[in-house]
Amino acid sequence: MENNYKSALEERPGIDQPVSVNPNLVRRKRRELSLDEYVQGVLKGDWVILSRAITMIESANPEHLQMAQAIIEQCLPHSGNSLRIGITGVPGVGKSTFIEAFGTLLTQMGHKVAVLAIDPSSERTKGSILGDKTRMESLSVNPKAFIRPSPSGNTLGGVARKTRESIILCEAAGYDVIIVETVGVGQSETAVKSMVDFFLLLMLAGAGDELQGIKRGIMEMADALIINKADGDNKPKAFQAQSQYRAALKLFPQTDSQWTVPVEVCSALENFAIDKVWDMILRYEAHTKANGYFERNRSEQLINIFHNWIQFTLQNNFYNQPQTEAEIERLLPLIRDKKISPYMAATNLIEQLDKVKGIGDR
Amino acid sequence: MENNYKSALEERPGIDQPVSVNPNLVRRKRRELSLDEYVQGVLKGDWVILSRAITMIESANPEHLQMAQAIIEQCLPHSGNSLRIGITGVPGVGKSTFIEAFGTLLTQMGHKVAVLAIDPSSERTKGSILGDKTRMESLSVNPKAFIRPSPSGNTLGGVARKTRESIILCEAAGYDVIIVETVGVGQSETAVKSMVDFFLLLMLAGAGDELQGIKRGIMEMADALIINKADGDNKPKAFQAQSQYRAALKLFPQTDSQWTVPVEVCSALENFAIDKVWDMILRYEAHTKANGYFERNRSEQLINIFHNWIQFTLQNNFYNQPQTEAEIERLLPLIRDKKISPYMAATNLIEQLDKVKGIGDR
Repeated sequence: MENNYKSALEERPGIDQPVSVNPNLVRRKRRELSLDEYVQGVLKGDWVILSRAITMIESANPEHLQMAQAIIEQCLPHSGNSLRIGITGVPGVGKSTFIEAFGTLLTQMGHKVAVLAIDPSSERTKGSILGDKTRMESLSVNPKAFIRPSPSGNTLGGVARKTRESIILCEAAGYDVIIVETVGVGQSETAVKSMVDFFLLLMLAGAGDELQGIKRGIMEMADALIINKADGDNKPKAFQAQSQYRAALKLFPQTDSQWTVPVEVCSALENFAIDKVWDMILRYEAHTKANGYFERNRSEQLINIFHNWIQFTLQNNFYNQPQTEAEIERLLPLIRDKKISPYMAATNLIEQLDKVKGIGDR
Repeated sequence: MENNYKSALEERPGIDQPVSVNPNLVRRKRRELSLDEYVQGVLKGDWVILSRAITMIESANPEHLQMAQAIIEQCLPHSGNSLRIGITGVPGVGKSTFIEAFGTLLTQMGHKVAVLAIDPSSERTKGSILGDKTRMESLSVNPKAFIRPSPSGNTLGGVARKTRESIILCEAAGYDVIIVETVGVGQSETAVKSMVDFFLLLMLAGAGDELQGIKRGIMEMADALIINKADGDNKPKAFQAQSQYRAALKLFPQTDSQWTVPVEVCSALENFAIDKVWDMILRYEAHTKANGYFERNRSEQLINIFHNWIQFTLQNNFYNQPQTEAEIERLLPLIRDKKISPYMAATNLIEQLDKVKGIGDR
C-alpha cells in the first residue's frame, strides 16, 4: 500500500496541483485500463486506480460514462461498510481545519478516511476573494486518507451524482469513514444530507445566525451542531453560544431518527474536544442502528439515487440522439431572433425526436 | 385599477397571509378562468388574474401545466419591456429593507415594480432561526407594486423555471421593473443571474468576506456592489469597505458587458443614496444597450430557457406515462432490499418504457 501512495503522490490534490486542476490533464498519457483492472484495483484499495476510476465517473465523455457505470455496478456489492459524514458551515467557520484535525484523529485510530468535497460553484469560485488557502496539508499526505476535490460541473445535480458514485468506490476501496464536505450555505446541504448517515453543522460563536447565513432549514437537517474555534478569547463565547443553541434546538420538532441533536464546542486549531465529536457520531450510529433508522435512511437514499439517475439518463439519451445536435443548431438562431419561443422549440423538438425514435424501434 | 388592487387585498402576501401560504388554499373556491380570460386579464394588468396565472404556473397539476404554457405563449410577445434586476446578499444584509426602500422610490417615479423571490429552500426555511420578520410592509400594500414570494419546490431548477415564467407574466401585465431577490449564498445566484439584466450584490461593512460567505464566483457575477447599512456608527466603516472593494475589484477580469463594476454605499434604513443605485442601473442599461450586450445577454437567456424546458419536459413526459407509476411501485422495494441497483433499475425502466412508446407510435 505505502508504495502505491508514494507512487501516487503526483496525483494528490493539495500537494503539487491546485485543487481545481482538471485530472484528465494529468492522466491523458496513461494507457486505458480494462473494467476488470479498474474493479480489482479499487477492491485492492489501490489509490491510483481509485483516483482514475473516480476520474472516469467525472468524465463527460459518453464512452467513459459506460465504463463508469460498469465499475459502479461491480463495486456496489462491496460498498456501504462505512460511516458517511456530511460536514457543512459557512465559509470561514474552519471546515478544512476541522476536517484536517478530525480526519487525522480517525487515521490514528486506524480508520481509512476519504474526504470528498461537493461545491457546484468550485469551477468559478476558486476560494474566497481573499485568495486560496492550501487545505488539509497534513491529511493530504496521510497514507490512510484519500482527499478528492469537488468534481467540476455547473449543475448541483451533476456534482451530487458524481460525489454519490465516488462514495461507492471509496467504500469498495476499503475507506470506512467517508466525509463529504459542502461549501457553506445553500442548496448543496440538501444534496449532501441526501447521501450521508450523519450531518454535522459547524458554527461560530459570536457571529449572529443571520450573518452566518444559517437558515432554519439547514439547522433542522443537522444531526449535531459543533461550535468551532473555541480557543483563546473565543472560548467563553463558544460555551455561551452552546447553551443558546441548546435552548434554541429545544424549540425544534423531534427528528425522524429520534435522536436529540447535541451541541458541542471544539477547537480544530488547538485540537480541543475533536475526539468528543467522534464519540458522539458513534453514539448516533449505535442509536440509529438500534431503532432501524440507519438502514431506513440508506434505503431512502437508494430511492433518491434511482430518481436522480432517471433524470440524468433521460437528458443523456436525448442529447446523444444523432438528430438532436443538428436540430438544436437549427433552432438556436430562431430562438435568439424570437421567431419561436424557447418553450415551443423545446416541446416540438422532443415530440419530433420521440417520433423518430418510435420509427427506429420498429 | 385601484379597485382591482383593493379587491385583491386578501390575496396579498405579507398582509393577511404568511408569505409561505399555499395560494391554492385561498383560491380553491374560485371558478376556473378560460385561457382568454387569463391572457386578457394579465394584459390589462389585472392584479388578481396575474396572481392566479402565476399560481397556475406554480401548480404541479398536469392540466394546469398545459394552461400555464398556453398563457405564457400568448404573453411572451408582450413581455420583455422591463429592466430585470437580480438582488442577492447573505441573510442579514438587509435585502428586504433595501427592496422596500428601492421599490418604493421607483413607484414614486411612476414605475410599476414586481418583486419575485427565488429561494429553493423556502418551504423548509421559514426565515431565520430567530423567527420570521414581516417583510416589505409598505411596498406590499403599494398599488404600483406586485410582490410574490418564492414558489414552493424542492429543486432549484423547478423554482427557477417558475420564477422565469412569472417574469414573463409580470412584464405582460405592464410591470417595467422586475426585481428578483435571491436568498444569500449558494446556487440560486447563478439561477438569478441567468434571468436578469442587472445583478446587484448587497454587502455589509465590517463583516469579513469569509463570514459574509461571499465567494469570488458570486462577486464575479455582480454588476454592482452595494454596501448597505451605511448608517450611524457604521457609516465610516461602510466608506472604508467601499474603497477596499473598489481595490479588490480592480483585480477582477473585465466583464463581458465591458462595464466597470461600481461599488456604492447606501442605507436602506435611512433612505440614503438609494436613488444613486437606480441612476447606476440606468447607466448600465444605456451602456449595455449601446454596445449590444443587453440584447445579446437576453438572447442567451432564451437559449437557457430552451435547455431548461427540455429537461423539464423530458422528466414530465416520463413520469406521466401510464406505465411509469406502476413500474416504479414494483421497483422501489427491490431497490430498497438491494435486489437491484438504483442505477440498473433506472436504466432498465427507461429502456422498457421507450420500447412501449415506440410500439405506441406505430
